[in-house]
Amino acid sequence: MLSVSEAQTVVLNHARSLPPGRSSVSVELLGQVLAENVASDLDMPPFDKSLMDGFAVRSADLPQGKATLSIIEEVTAGQTPQRALQTMQATRIMTGAPIPVGADAVVMIERTRLTADGRVEVEDKPPRPGQNIMTRGREMRRGETVLESGCVLRPQEFGILASVGKTSVAVIPRPTVAILTTGNEVVDASRQPGPGQIRNGNGPMLHAQVARAGGIPRSLGIAPDVAPKLRSMIEEGLQSNILVLSGGVSAGKLDLVPGVLEELGVQAHFHKVALKPGKPILFGTWGTGTLVFGLPGNPVSALVGFELFVRPAIRRLAGHEKVGPFFVEATLEEPFTYKTDRPTYYPAALDAESRRVRPVPWFGSPDLRALSRANAFLVIAAGEHQLPAGHVVSVMRTDD
Amino acid sequence: MLSVSEAQTVVLNHARSLPPGRSSVSVELLGQVLAENVASDLDMPPFDKSLMDGFAVRSADLPQGKATLSIIEEVTAGQTPQRALQTMQATRIMTGAPIPVGADAVVMIERTRLTADGRVEVEDKPPRPGQNIMTRGREMRRGETVLESGCVLRPQEFGILASVGKTSVAVIPRPTVAILTTGNEVVDASRQPGPGQIRNGNGPMLHAQVARAGGIPRSLGIAPDVAPKLRSMIEEGLQSNILVLSGGVSAGKLDLVPGVLEELGVQAHFHKVALKPGKPILFGTWGTGTLVFGLPGNPVSALVGFELFVRPAIRRLAGHEKVGPFFVEATLEEPFTYKTDRPTYYPAALDAESRRVRPVPWFGSPDLRALSRANAFLVIAAGEHQLPAGHVVSVMRTDD
Repeated sequence: MLSVSEAQTVVLNHARSLPPGRSSVSVELLGQVLAENVASDLDMPPFDKSLMDGFAVRSADLPQGKATLSIIEEVTAGQTPQRALQTMQATRIMTGAPIPVGADAVVMIERTRLTADGRVEVEDKPPRPGQNIMTRGREMRRGETVLESGCVLRPQEFGILASVGKTSVAVIPRPTVAILTTGNEVVDASRQPGPGQIRNGNGPMLHAQVARAGGIPRSLGIAPDVAPKLRSMIEEGLQSNILVLSGGVSAGKLDLVPGVLEELGVQAHFHKVALKPGKPILFGTWGTGTLVFGLPGNPVSALVGFELFVRPAIRRLAGHEKVGPFFVEATLEEPFTYKTDRPTYYPAALDAESRRVRPVPWFGSPDLRALSRANAFLVIAAGEHQLPAGHVVSVMRTDD
Repeated sequence: MLSVSEAQTVVLNHARSLPPGRSSVSVELLGQVLAENVASDLDMPPFDKSLMDGFAVRSADLPQGKATLSIIEEVTAGQTPQRALQTMQATRIMTGAPIPVGADAVVMIERTRLTADGRVEVEDKPPRPGQNIMTRGREMRRGETVLESGCVLRPQEFGILASVGKTSVAVIPRPTVAILTTGNEVVDASRQPGPGQIRNGNGPMLHAQVARAGGIPRSLGIAPDVAPKLRSMIEEGLQSNILVLSGGVSAGKLDLVPGVLEELGVQAHFHKVALKPGKPILFGTWGTGTLVFGLPGNPVSALVGFELFVRPAIRRLAGHEKVGPFFVEATLEEPFTYKTDRPTYYPAALDAESRRVRPVPWFGSPDLRALSRANAFLVIAAGEHQLPAGHVVSVMRTDD
């Protein structure tokens, strides 16, 4: 049986970044990965620019920092100065406005006052040439690469793209992820379960996990344990980049999924992983690259299996370098005694700022309620553990 | 001048959770805050349920763990057992299926084998009553609160809502946030800037920040420094829950925003905050609760001002208890020397797992490119600092 990290390696060996596509730049691309180098189409700033409201001056006129200068012009942002500065002249200038020819410094407005005869009296430290001026091209030069292929689009990258006039870009698309819950006993959330039936909690949970991971979820509904119907729903699911099945993958008599997958030509790479909850986890590939995951029907097992294997696959297809899962070290707030025959992911509440963690009450893989009090999982090796409060443990984060 | 934390207190004193609304449960609600207690409409599981594939048995028949039993029935998930177990009988049972009357334990399939005459030979430890059975109502009881008002909807909460048949819920809506960039010198990203002009990078950046913070962004475009037009665009923006203005709030001659806001009846609570970059930050309120933020035009100042003041306000309106900003302690990877007259937020690259951080090259508030190499900000008090590598510093996280 594979270890979790061996199984993750198998999955990632089969997960390749999707081919880039061209998209208009819009907030829909938030979190997606850029697939081209972006160069600036202009110098930024496109002119020597004032960083302050004040007066553009010639530093040579203010060797002691003090002088009274004639005001020859006023320039606001968006305007262009019309006059060059001569000796003992100043231009009133606003933040963002171009520096007039002849000026080499800006004195901030707070260090000046207007005189009765309409001149400006400066009283400051002697100005340094370049003071309060951002020179042309200081931020970026025309033709210079300002964003590199592979970078994740966040708010600042949107600002940079807009600044260089980039309104469409090559990005790695979000992978499509089909979700199929299997089982004769499963009915839709909107229905009242009959005897022996349960509602489909896993479908909506996995749908939300796909969205959180940056994929495009496509819920296919509930497949009964009847081969032809199951087969046609799985065939539909194989059209997505990833198919996630929930239930029907353990050794039970009606666990038809592995057989149907084999019939359809899905190549299975593993069926089980040494972990708790959720040992029966199937991973296979189909055709030119569809990834197929069979997760257990128990909700906590399904959630953990998704975070350990499916989320990294989604992120890899989406072009991310860091695919997770993401672990931190944290300090136990209370003693924790636990015995397990397999590496176990135990629901826990982590305070991300203080890095303190405590396990939450949990009675096993069907207990999804425990997860509404949790935001992480303690990672516990096989064996008997009596961990004291203050012990440092490894924690898998699931929340962003 | 207010400190950052004083200013944050002022903002949060004016930010109240929006009134709840009813929504269909869908992935659109991911990250929103539940505004009602949700109770289960049934016992979960609704019957004593097998946790394993195997045989339901009477533990009394297996005092040594070993016996050969008659198989009276086979029950799969979704079916209901028809026969009660008598002495030395067993029912073949699948994970999730109801336990037949008379049985009090399940022996896993791996500990059994079928005999030639169609019976089952069990060889295991003596079964414990209740073994591998999840009793009715163990996970949740009918009428019991399973999700509390105030909880954030994550994948596991979607699973729980579906399990209890909840297809519509009361939630706090996402706040609407209007974004308005001001300045005669600013042109849209799609245009080629003329002399003295720059493209509107802040609009798309703030739009993405609003989306990341969980708000609904509404970009109003670019307002010129012309009072009537500026006024009508601001009036439109005041119809949203929050209005974010970028530019036009410092003391420059064309900084019309404060005057227009006052004319329109916006009550200003502060104009400046002791921080760098971004001292001129305006906060006001209008009418029955619209929050108005005037951020500086320099992009890094705008981004930092948003993270410090606007994002917490969005989260508070959206009903979150934890509104941020979020800080962690991290270790400097390299020495850092810096002198500043105000508390400064300095762009930095944080490795969240190792909690190591390094400042990125940055030449000041217009330098948005620095932020494409950063995911956090060092928080530096006013004064002169010569921090050695290994020094522990406070870091504001901006990425999720």
